[in-house]
Amino acid sequence: MSAASQHRRTFGGKKVLITGGLGFIGSNLARALLRLGAEVTIIDNLFPRHGGNRRNLHGLEKKLEVIIADVRHRRSLPACLAGKDFLFNLAGQTSHMDSMTDPDTDLEINCRAQLSILEACRQHNPGIRVVFASTRQIYGRPDYLPVDEKHPLRPVDVNGINKLAGEEYHLLYSEVHGVRSTVLRLTNTIGPRMRVKDARQTFVGVWIKEVVTGKPFEVWGGAQLRDFTSVDDAVEAFLLAAARPEAVGRVFNLGGVGHVSLRELADLLVAAAGRRHAGYTVRAFPADRKKIDIGDFYADGRLIEQVLGWRPTTTVGEALAQTVAFYRKELPHYL
Amino acid sequence: MSAASQHRRTFGGKKVLITGGLGFIGSNLARALLRLGAEVTIIDNLFPRHGGNRRNLHGLEKKLEVIIADVRHRRSLPACLAGKDFLFNLAGQTSHMDSMTDPDTDLEINCRAQLSILEACRQHNPGIRVVFASTRQIYGRPDYLPVDEKHPLRPVDVNGINKLAGEEYHLLYSEVHGVRSTVLRLTNTIGPRMRVKDARQTFVGVWIKEVVTGKPFEVWGGAQLRDFTSVDDAVEAFLLAAARPEAVGRVFNLGGVGHVSLRELADLLVAAAGRRHAGYTVRAFPADRKKIDIGDFYADGRLIEQVLGWRPTTTVGEALAQTVAFYRKELPHYL
Repeated sequence: MSAASQHRRTFGGKKVLITGGLGFIGSNLARALLRLGAEVTIIDNLFPRHGGNRRNLHGLEKKLEVIIADVRHRRSLPACLAGKDFLFNLAGQTSHMDSMTDPDTDLEINCRAQLSILEACRQHNPGIRVVFASTRQIYGRPDYLPVDEKHPLRPVDVNGINKLAGEEYHLLYSEVHGVRSTVLRLTNTIGPRMRVKDARQTFVGVWIKEVVTGKPFEVWGGAQLRDFTSVDDAVEAFLLAAARPEAVGRVFNLGGVGHVSLRELADLLVAAAGRRHAGYTVRAFPADRKKIDIGDFYADGRLIEQVLGWRPTTTVGEALAQTVAFYRKELPHYL
Repeated sequence: MSAASQHRRTFGGKKVLITGGLGFIGSNLARALLRLGAEVTIIDNLFPRHGGNRRNLHGLEKKLEVIIADVRHRRSLPACLAGKDFLFNLAGQTSHMDSMTDPDTDLEINCRAQLSILEACRQHNPGIRVVFASTRQIYGRPDYLPVDEKHPLRPVDVNGINKLAGEEYHLLYSEVHGVRSTVLRLTNTIGPRMRVKDARQTFVGVWIKEVVTGKPFEVWGGAQLRDFTSVDDAVEAFLLAAARPEAVGRVFNLGGVGHVSLRELADLLVAAAGRRHAGYTVRAFPADRKKIDIGDFYADGRLIEQVLGWRPTTTVGEALAQTVAFYRKELPHYL
């Protein structure tokens, strides 16, 4: 049976809630779940600094339920969770810099709201199956590469500390309260519907915007190594993690297809952009970001391949080309 | 120069704030600092479920400033921190069971208030020297014994997750914002002024109460290994951690003098109690606690010995004897 028909069997007719569902990964996941025949409900607060954008589900508004609400408002959670079979828990504050200038908001979203969501599951829908979007940021500066799931956890910013707590709440509620959860630690994800207006999701968003508007983009440093997952590959990992019982109570890295230096990434983007680009400039890494930067990073993705059979199939160049093509049409809706 | 005269030089005439200062360790620390000539201010919310008790500073009320306030009320923090040279940050929710039944309160105290305290330091008193009371609970179930500071961190309850975040905030603010902090991971601490009315600090408190009131105490399981630090030794570790520049930005276990099974501990307590005791009964470990229990635990205390020269000197039997003697006089004030 193909992966798609297995997924149709798992998700067809099932009730699914996606927090942060108007965001980059959430909306791509919602689109995939609609194609698989799921009944999709979305919660998103549409805060301007976060990833939510109504355009992300343009044309599908009547095919799913969109609740404009904030996961910090705990009273609305029980009603949203009631009767759902799956929860894809992607709502989060993602900006490292914002977490340092406004640590309290990061804590409210990435810790407190997560605990409220899990408490609501425990009290009102303990049979729900949960997948939580965590981040490589919790590893901090790597001791070794590639970074596997056993690497020490030493987050270097408030966002990383709070995401780590959010991850641990999920594992705890799975272990102690039976709210079956899986944690995926995402690395840089790229693809259509990523945030491009600023660097709050990833610096690559800003690069894409500059390329599409014909301006040179800025590479900071350039020697740092990073890995990248295409959003389609990431969506497939979320579906597999929710579908497979052997994923319950576990943590998996999502790696990318290989890893590249930022300079190589810049060259790939220039190539993906074709003739209509203005190139890039290289400047020194800014001092205020250096303190919370993690240096080289790429993930060891072997565990999820062994346990769930997932591996990324889209190259960085392909993902960049898809993204540039998307924003050549769609950019005005994302600025 | 003796340790005491070094401490007098470090703390004499200095302004010191102790959060949770009416609690068990906080009040013993306050007493030591007063003896060293420090100007001591205390914040404590005196919540009945927490460790604060006015009796803990009986007779010293006029020698220090006591502010009955909650560290969750962030507006009062800047005024409390202004002009202080040292912050001993001991306010916390300590009950593992309470953290599971009321996770939100645990988060408010052990995460959010910690972040508020550190933000207040950063904004209003960045030169302050901070020591944070963390816990062995953040290690979870040990992979190996004794547990050193490099052991993976896998907390098994909400309290452990939140204390870990609190610890990481301190290290982050030390590293990134220059708020010089040291983290001490405490194991079971015993001594005069420990909470004995229930097991919210440690089960040993309840044992002490039963012994002093002439009732048999209950040992759950009994084979589990634990280590114990006397409160006098713990206080000395806090003073050293605050005094020594080489402790900045670091995490240290506080170990005990050796380790014992709970059954051996029970026998030591019976011996410490002398003739006037009723012995103990052994029963199976309760199922609801088993889920969040960590099994055998004892800490490797070599790092703090190497770096700061601290090692515990009080045996478990001596600490128990002091505690029993204290509560033979004082018990009515602690029920």
